[in-house]
Amino acid sequence: MEDFKSKPLVGQIGEFALIDRIAAMLPQRSAGVVKGIGDDVAVLDASGPQYLIATCDSQVEGVHFVREVITAYQLGRRLAAINISDIAAAGGEPRWALVSLAIPQDIEVGFVEELYRGMGEQMALAGASIVGGNLSRMKSSLVLDLTLLGLVSPGHLMLRSTAQSGDAVILTGSVGESRAGLELTRRPELLLDSSAKNRLLDRHLCPQPRLSQGLLLAQSGLVTSMIDISDGVISDLLHVCNSSGKGAEIDVSGLYLSPALCQAALAAGADPLQWALSGGEDYELMFTTAPKAVQDIQKMLFEKTGVSCSQIGTITPGGGVSLRLADGSRITAGLKGWDHFGGGM
Amino acid sequence: MEDFKSKPLVGQIGEFALIDRIAAMLPQRSAGVVKGIGDDVAVLDASGPQYLIATCDSQVEGVHFVREVITAYQLGRRLAAINISDIAAAGGEPRWALVSLAIPQDIEVGFVEELYRGMGEQMALAGASIVGGNLSRMKSSLVLDLTLLGLVSPGHLMLRSTAQSGDAVILTGSVGESRAGLELTRRPELLLDSSAKNRLLDRHLCPQPRLSQGLLLAQSGLVTSMIDISDGVISDLLHVCNSSGKGAEIDVSGLYLSPALCQAALAAGADPLQWALSGGEDYELMFTTAPKAVQDIQKMLFEKTGVSCSQIGTITPGGGVSLRLADGSRITAGLKGWDHFGGGM
Repeated sequence: MEDFKSKPLVGQIGEFALIDRIAAMLPQRSAGVVKGIGDDVAVLDASGPQYLIATCDSQVEGVHFVREVITAYQLGRRLAAINISDIAAAGGEPRWALVSLAIPQDIEVGFVEELYRGMGEQMALAGASIVGGNLSRMKSSLVLDLTLLGLVSPGHLMLRSTAQSGDAVILTGSVGESRAGLELTRRPELLLDSSAKNRLLDRHLCPQPRLSQGLLLAQSGLVTSMIDISDGVISDLLHVCNSSGKGAEIDVSGLYLSPALCQAALAAGADPLQWALSGGEDYELMFTTAPKAVQDIQKMLFEKTGVSCSQIGTITPGGGVSLRLADGSRITAGLKGWDHFGGGM
Repeated sequence: MEDFKSKPLVGQIGEFALIDRIAAMLPQRSAGVVKGIGDDVAVLDASGPQYLIATCDSQVEGVHFVREVITAYQLGRRLAAINISDIAAAGGEPRWALVSLAIPQDIEVGFVEELYRGMGEQMALAGASIVGGNLSRMKSSLVLDLTLLGLVSPGHLMLRSTAQSGDAVILTGSVGESRAGLELTRRPELLLDSSAKNRLLDRHLCPQPRLSQGLLLAQSGLVTSMIDISDGVISDLLHVCNSSGKGAEIDVSGLYLSPALCQAALAAGADPLQWALSGGEDYELMFTTAPKAVQDIQKMLFEKTGVSCSQIGTITPGGGVSLRLADGSRITAGLKGWDHFGGGM
């Protein structure tokens, strides 16, 4: 313990504490930086009519994926999708991607081509393209990094740090399915309908970002804050609360648990609610809005994109996230979300 | 051999062939893309007064560095410097960086902080700042990726693909010292003056990008093409020639070999000319200009920045790069530059 205190290791303090330490070291105000470290995207002012927004996210072999389970094409789509999701959560439009690969020499060229085919197709769906990057040798594992640039009108920029007390917390689509899909990759013997199985595997291996929904929400003028679900509902809601200086109460009865999720959790002997609340990697959007706007937003989003959304909670003045369970009891949310150092594949 | 032809591996075709294959797969014309894959930077039009330029470069443990030899602070500076050098070669000004780290859990937090201190200081020297990034777990090696965004006026943008037949090929400073420094990290027992040793180690571990020189050259209106020396003089000149549809002849008598380089090569039993021509990682600038402008440029660069530059060759109509040796004989340059798959640390 003495040693931990004097020379802590990365694995001991965890991802979020490390980010806080790094952010504290860097200058807070720099030329052209509207918003630096601490949100889904960096927001930059390059003197154009729109803000430039930038994000980067990676896929590391043995941490985020195993090559036996995901195809190169799916991996490429996934890498593109998780970055597009960050731009979507900021209310922006993706434009240009740079891809950096560290690749073992014994990987087939065809694998790399499939990877780019996947990335290229997912980027094209989002109106973006790959414009550059870097290739490097790597001894063993494959490490993929993608930096995505997008544009957003200053009036439509969505941040996680602007939730207001009393706001409704709304979630698009359904959560927990990616976690269920992960379970199926680990335990392919689990008995499930093939349609449910395919749906869950697809949610996990080939997630689809909520890009048009993010744009509509940002342009509605009704949304006060937005984030995408990468770490998990509770973990991401904690990000919103901590950076907004607020708290939140989740009413679990508002959470939509899909039949496929419930079927997989039953087969795996797991709690579907736990998967839904802290599974992560669903890439749904979670946003806040005044209670009186909830119905209008639900109607607009469904009519224009076919996607449902539901209120899962409320922003409170106090800190932290608490859960109201089905029996009416309350607990403080201490469930861990997806922590890239602490847990994961 | 049959297998190689049907399913080639990444290590068999090499970095540059792989980049060509990838570039051929991606759409050549996309919205806002002035220049995509194939130069030091991607050039993007975000409707602002200046072009946005973007580059990314990485440092992989066991490939680009070993932790026993470089400090975390030096590694941070190095990662920042090699990216700043790409912006410098485009004639641009660095602005915003995103950093993606894949880190083993047993690395000390202090190491990561030192890394960011190094990156932050090098970025601050260049007028840029770190605005975001990503952290991920990694099983063994450390993988560092940096994406750097900069700005350049459309009239001052420098590319590698615009060299003209008859142009002089000019090189700033001295080359080969980084390669000599690499040798010293591998063979610390080599006998050298401590001042020479320190200089060479510093060139290798903590390279300084030629940022103010790049800006001056771009704004002079006299330079036809520019690149930075990362792969090696011959390799990088081949990049210029191939993308410009030209050839070049290097007159080795124009190459400045520093006393420290010569001392180290002598001690190591190596050819200093070989190190100078294909060592790589010197991060000097190589540019082309009309012969009549050479003296003016040399004078301007020296008076304003204290940096000398010398003519090392001429652009020719035909393809390939040839060398004219001290005895007047000519050879076709087949020496390999720094290939991230084929060679390196």
